[in-house]
Amino acid sequence: MSKQNVIDDFSSFISIPSVSADPKRAPDMSRAVKFLSKKLTSLGFEVRLLQNGQNPATIFAKRIGSTDGKTIGIYGHYDVQPEDPVREWDSEPFTLTQKNGRFYGRGTADNKGHIIQNIAAIDNLIASQSLKNTIVFLIEGEEETGSEHFTSYIDTLKDELMKVDVFYITDVEMYKKNIPMIIYALRGLVYFEIELKVGDHDMHSGVYGNAVYNPAQILADLFAHMKNSRSGEVLISGFYDSVRKIAEKEMKLLNNHVFSDEEFQKDAGSLGLTSMRNVPSYLAPKIFPSMDIHGIKSGFVGDGPKTIIPAQGLAKFSFRLVEHQDAGKMELLVRDFIEKYMNQYGARVEYSITSHSYDNPFYCSINDPYLQKTARILSDHFGHETVFMREGGSIPAAEIIQRVLGKPVVLTGFVLPDANLHAPNENFDEDMFWEGIEVLGKIYGGI
Amino acid sequence: MSKQNVIDDFSSFISIPSVSADPKRAPDMSRAVKFLSKKLTSLGFEVRLLQNGQNPATIFAKRIGSTDGKTIGIYGHYDVQPEDPVREWDSEPFTLTQKNGRFYGRGTADNKGHIIQNIAAIDNLIASQSLKNTIVFLIEGEEETGSEHFTSYIDTLKDELMKVDVFYITDVEMYKKNIPMIIYALRGLVYFEIELKVGDHDMHSGVYGNAVYNPAQILADLFAHMKNSRSGEVLISGFYDSVRKIAEKEMKLLNNHVFSDEEFQKDAGSLGLTSMRNVPSYLAPKIFPSMDIHGIKSGFVGDGPKTIIPAQGLAKFSFRLVEHQDAGKMELLVRDFIEKYMNQYGARVEYSITSHSYDNPFYCSINDPYLQKTARILSDHFGHETVFMREGGSIPAAEIIQRVLGKPVVLTGFVLPDANLHAPNENFDEDMFWEGIEVLGKIYGGI
Repeated sequence: MSKQNVIDDFSSFISIPSVSADPKRAPDMSRAVKFLSKKLTSLGFEVRLLQNGQNPATIFAKRIGSTDGKTIGIYGHYDVQPEDPVREWDSEPFTLTQKNGRFYGRGTADNKGHIIQNIAAIDNLIASQSLKNTIVFLIEGEEETGSEHFTSYIDTLKDELMKVDVFYITDVEMYKKNIPMIIYALRGLVYFEIELKVGDHDMHSGVYGNAVYNPAQILADLFAHMKNSRSGEVLISGFYDSVRKIAEKEMKLLNNHVFSDEEFQKDAGSLGLTSMRNVPSYLAPKIFPSMDIHGIKSGFVGDGPKTIIPAQGLAKFSFRLVEHQDAGKMELLVRDFIEKYMNQYGARVEYSITSHSYDNPFYCSINDPYLQKTARILSDHFGHETVFMREGGSIPAAEIIQRVLGKPVVLTGFVLPDANLHAPNENFDEDMFWEGIEVLGKIYGGI
Repeated sequence: MSKQNVIDDFSSFISIPSVSADPKRAPDMSRAVKFLSKKLTSLGFEVRLLQNGQNPATIFAKRIGSTDGKTIGIYGHYDVQPEDPVREWDSEPFTLTQKNGRFYGRGTADNKGHIIQNIAAIDNLIASQSLKNTIVFLIEGEEETGSEHFTSYIDTLKDELMKVDVFYITDVEMYKKNIPMIIYALRGLVYFEIELKVGDHDMHSGVYGNAVYNPAQILADLFAHMKNSRSGEVLISGFYDSVRKIAEKEMKLLNNHVFSDEEFQKDAGSLGLTSMRNVPSYLAPKIFPSMDIHGIKSGFVGDGPKTIIPAQGLAKFSFRLVEHQDAGKMELLVRDFIEKYMNQYGARVEYSITSHSYDNPFYCSINDPYLQKTARILSDHFGHETVFMREGGSIPAAEIIQRVLGKPVVLTGFVLPDANLHAPNENFDEDMFWEGIEVLGKIYGGI
């Protein structure tokens, strides 16, 4: 596959605005599915589409190799984030633009570029007749909206997928340019919304202040009991019970690759960093579970003074979980904590709790032979030791594949830390794009 | 003055939509001033207008009586609340409508009806040649927007107003129909707004959760340190220092006239009442200072989950103060508390505090001879002992008049508790309207 052919495919793929969050773009979602199906079919893949009603299809594509080969699963997602705010882009979001050694465009880094790399790598192996492994592509279109149907598709495909020896998910960053990275742990997530009500309508704080409860004050008190705002520690009894202490060896490994506070703070755009249990700020979100309020609202927040006791209050908050913490158990623990807390207020305060998301943490031993072998191939190719790192965020697919199928998952990728994922001017470094195709060929051909 | 003449005046006055909060209605504010000036001039008053730029004028009108008479000040305000929500009115808001024994219309109860009563009472005294007292009217047009210029006008008029022996403010409710009430205490108010910032933009809670402070969590913790959400007690050290213990005699008097919890809860529209220090719920807002959050906002509160650490947070809150608490000192106490609290977070959190309002509490001894004499006239007229009561809300004019001039202020009125002040279907009971005119005549003629 010539470089120009790869760029042509990449360009066609980027030109399809497959934004899963926008219902008006459902036809574009179908166009993206057609584009990939056609491409994979042309490479000898048998393509099957899984679809639940009008939701974006998940592509299952399989190309059988020789009987002594392994079966390799490759996960990707063809849906992208909305391009907003458009005026902050320096080029057209849905036009692949080459500039300053980067490919620009929505989806270049997340995750269309990686999909094109994987297809090109397989294409090259086929062309050179060096692909003995069976390859299974699993490409979904709901990653950016929460992978709603992914678990059910995995269940449907279970017989097929159980034959896979190892899954590759190329949906993360490199550590730095020419420094490969494998992510072996992602945090899980349990997301809550709480609504409080103390009456039919807002009340006059002069007439009723001291005689009725204030929902904003109750939310404040609830959260003060849930987390220490200075140390960041979650105060819910039992929350840390199943968290393992990270082994000295692993901590040493992690400490070898810590971004400086200056660098990390600059990335965050924050006024300053905090430190939990004396670990570097860069590692604290990766190795400890956390709790954060995402939004809170009660009463009047417009201009000027208004002296009401609000009738209602609302808050959204979530817990990020690490390995051995179970999302289901954590949900019950938090609900139980809130119920006991709210009992203090009796019938004077009505409340409801909703849970929105529900992802278990992902963790794959770095001693797994596939991770180790992949790391060696990456290290040899880039001339730099592969960094093993944890991530604080969540990729539901990684955990679902591992949990449902019990297979090793190698989580890696070739975009750089300044790739602007989910933001304007999303990009993929050109050098790392081509190097990635080469090294993926070595991995899929040689593992 | 015949009843029909009074109704005609009342009707004309109500038909002027003098909503001070609406800049488009500035011409109507002028019309209301003209209406009152003309009326008072026709009664022999010398009228003077005080105005600061384009703001609604305050009317100062004086009619000199006999040399052995007293000088009586009468405060009122000709501005009214906006009529929203209009569709909840059963009659036209700016048309005086007589129905079911009530006068309906915006301003009937607050405060135009009372102004018409006062003018009619004076008119009757003049007609019967029984007005020996000098009468001073002070009618402002900024009461509903915070009495911004009132203190400066009082200062301007100080020489004139110091000659006044007693001020009457008829801007409150009766206890019940035919049960007169004098309010001898109102709470003061200090209003704050706090804004927090931890960074330039919202951050990903996966990547940064544990590494940066969360402004919503800090606000929660701050308020949990400021007030006990269950008991309602303010936790700021020194907050209650200057609060006097209410004498047993006064408490006994107050306890004679306590609304039942059922009645008070129904008025509040709340799910249930609380009790502070074992006093009846009805009294707790009247005799103790209080603190309430009026509004809080941080992060994302739209539909669905969004996993951000908000960059900013905002809250509005105020303290209601009782006699002997000084609004200025309380402002400093609260600012000092917040500054010490925020020091914990150092430069990682930027914050700013704004104070919006600033009213001292009002308190007039019930032993004051003018209060006592007025109470006797009211009791005799209505055939029921006058209730002496405190209020939890604030009327800045009462406190300003008393503080600047050091004169007794008699705070009373003739609207009923269900007069719907500031709400749709505002009304004035017809019987109490006419009785009020009669008894005001007795007061202004006989005090």
